Amino acid sequence: MGTDLAALCRDMVAIPSVSQREKSLADFVVEYLGGVKGLDTTRIGNNVVARSSFGRQYRILIAGHLDTVPPDDNLVPLVRDGRIYGLGSADMKSGLAVMLGLADQVTSFSMDVTFIFYVCEEAVASLSGLKEIERSDEEIFASQAAILMEPTSSRIEAGCQGTMRIRCDIRGKRAHTARPWVGVNAIHRLGELVQRISNAELEDPVIDGLQFREALQVVKISGGVANNVVPDLASIVVNHRFAPDKGIEEAFESVRHLLGDLIDQDNGDEVVLEEGVLGAMPNLDSPFIAKLLEITGEMPKAKLGWTDVAFFSARGIPATNFGPGDPLVAHTKDEFVEVKEIDLAFNAMNYALRV
Amino acid sequence: MGTDLAALCRDMVAIPSVSQREKSLADFVVEYLGGVKGLDTTRIGNNVVARSSFGRQYRILIAGHLDTVPPDDNLVPLVRDGRIYGLGSADMKSGLAVMLGLADQVTSFSMDVTFIFYVCEEAVASLSGLKEIERSDEEIFASQAAILMEPTSSRIEAGCQGTMRIRCDIRGKRAHTARPWVGVNAIHRLGELVQRISNAELEDPVIDGLQFREALQVVKISGGVANNVVPDLASIVVNHRFAPDKGIEEAFESVRHLLGDLIDQDNGDEVVLEEGVLGAMPNLDSPFIAKLLEITGEMPKAKLGWTDVAFFSARGIPATNFGPGDPLVAHTKDEFVEVKEIDLAFNAMNYALRV
Repeated sequence: MGTDLAALCRDMVAIPSVSQREKSLADFVVEYLGGVKGLDTTRIGNNVVARSSFGRQYRILIAGHLDTVPPDDNLVPLVRDGRIYGLGSADMKSGLAVMLGLADQVTSFSMDVTFIFYVCEEAVASLSGLKEIERSDEEIFASQAAILMEPTSSRIEAGCQGTMRIRCDIRGKRAHTARPWVGVNAIHRLGELVQRISNAELEDPVIDGLQFREALQVVKISGGVANNVVPDLASIVVNHRFAPDKGIEEAFESVRHLLGDLIDQDNGDEVVLEEGVLGAMPNLDSPFIAKLLEITGEMPKAKLGWTDVAFFSARGIPATNFGPGDPLVAHTKDEFVEVKEIDLAFNAMNYALRV
Repeated sequence: MGTDLAALCRDMVAIPSVSQREKSLADFVVEYLGGVKGLDTTRIGNNVVARSSFGRQYRILIAGHLDTVPPDDNLVPLVRDGRIYGLGSADMKSGLAVMLGLADQVTSFSMDVTFIFYVCEEAVASLSGLKEIERSDEEIFASQAAILMEPTSSRIEAGCQGTMRIRCDIRGKRAHTARPWVGVNAIHRLGELVQRISNAELEDPVIDGLQFREALQVVKISGGVANNVVPDLASIVVNHRFAPDKGIEEAFESVRHLLGDLIDQDNGDEVVLEEGVLGAMPNLDSPFIAKLLEITGEMPKAKLGWTDVAFFSARGIPATNFGPGDPLVAHTKDEFVEVKEIDLAFNAMNYALRV
């Protein structure tokens, strides 16, 4: 193939790029693409967009984020036993290496390609490089399909589930702990909500033949006034992952319904939707995604987490997750990628873009 | 009686004395007692001890704390409708006024009296003025009975319940909230403990004819890592009020037994006794307390909260709570004391010390 993808991946792992500090890695990508024929490369902040313009009938968008989560003593890459270890190796500098390898082949493709390297995927949603690019020129995303090279062990993980953050504030009435019957313990009331959430029967819907699996988890709990005071306020933050065929209001309503009789609005209890983003449907019938699926020869899986495929999906572009690296090792100290998965992802994409 | 107790109380409410800042009020007490015949007054830090030494057969100790909780826009005393409003009016400057009024009568008593005005009852136990006095001279407390003039609406509230603080740390296993079944949610596990505590059937023991009532309350709860992480640790702090005939180990054991099957020590769960203090038995058969009870003519009640009667009780001195002011308004913004309760407490004590 001509491009040493493992070396490229290792070199990029060696360039720190924690969210909001992606400049050095963007410099590397710009310099690399400067030596590639057939691409028009633009920099928007520290985002990099590279497009071929051969007037082909189809245009495919291939995207990956430059940033990583904060380091955990894993900044130095290590190549051993067919693996590359280090921060971002799986999520997603191996995917970026595949993108650079594909860029080298762009003159041989039967389709035009738009490569997007973007910042701040791991940080606050509002800072996402995709939004920065969109503000600059929303036409950049125009394409018939988008492949997001997030780690999926080089098999298609289609669509993604939606996610929302819900806060519940439960009220009580203060009293001295020696006479708690004069008050109402908000933490005791909250205990029942936590139990209800913990025991909730959730849906495992099958959509386009893919098994999704919803989740409902209390991710934060707090409450208390002083060691001798019956507390009058206790709160939880709940994360709900919901199937991509549900709207935000529908998903939120199902949680409100679950907790319904435990919430006393007259008492000042509140259930508040703090943030919610839709998932993305699998789009397995989109021609390019269907072709990629056929080439990989693997059964597709549903993407249970939320990814930027939802960003493209919301803009009418069929999108899927497909890239090297095990999503379960992402964000762990011992993050790694199998070199053979890098080659698998490259070969599948390289073939799909030619035929 | 000669002493205007309501005016004394009002004047002392006007002197701020938040815990650890009792100097001005100690100055006031020392100056007042300087004009009283028959008392030997000593200052130990900002604690004040005043003793008669007429060689009587009995010595009664009468104690009250100088400090208050922090102000809540209630530092200026207000006299209206037979009440004195203001911070410390009930807890316990009305009690201090009764003590000063009794000091004026000390030459007429049939018993010797030791008055103790002490600091830091409302703050950290280790800073209590009683301990400061004890370090200076433990013989100061020698007496046949101790009356603690804490607010009891001028009726005897006998003994006091013990109190302990227990921390429970519950462990789980981190995971991404999109795949919670890979982990264990520590907050979900903790929810079951809170429910168990909330529904616990506690004892309401009758001791020396007095109805005690135990209590078990979660006073603090915390846990959580990030909004997309299944949390691996969640904690509660529990306050347990227990009957005065129970030891600390016995009371703690009953809580451990209650939670027993929910605690997985192999998993790193912990139930830790952070602090525990014994209660005090009612001691209604102690001669002076029995006499005071007869004079008031009211049925005694059990003291459900913890007070310094336990300090004296632990040193072999029968002690009881008896003073003006409603304990339920103590530590509230609208704290007040009924002037007639001040007179009631004074008259009962003045009579009991003479006969």
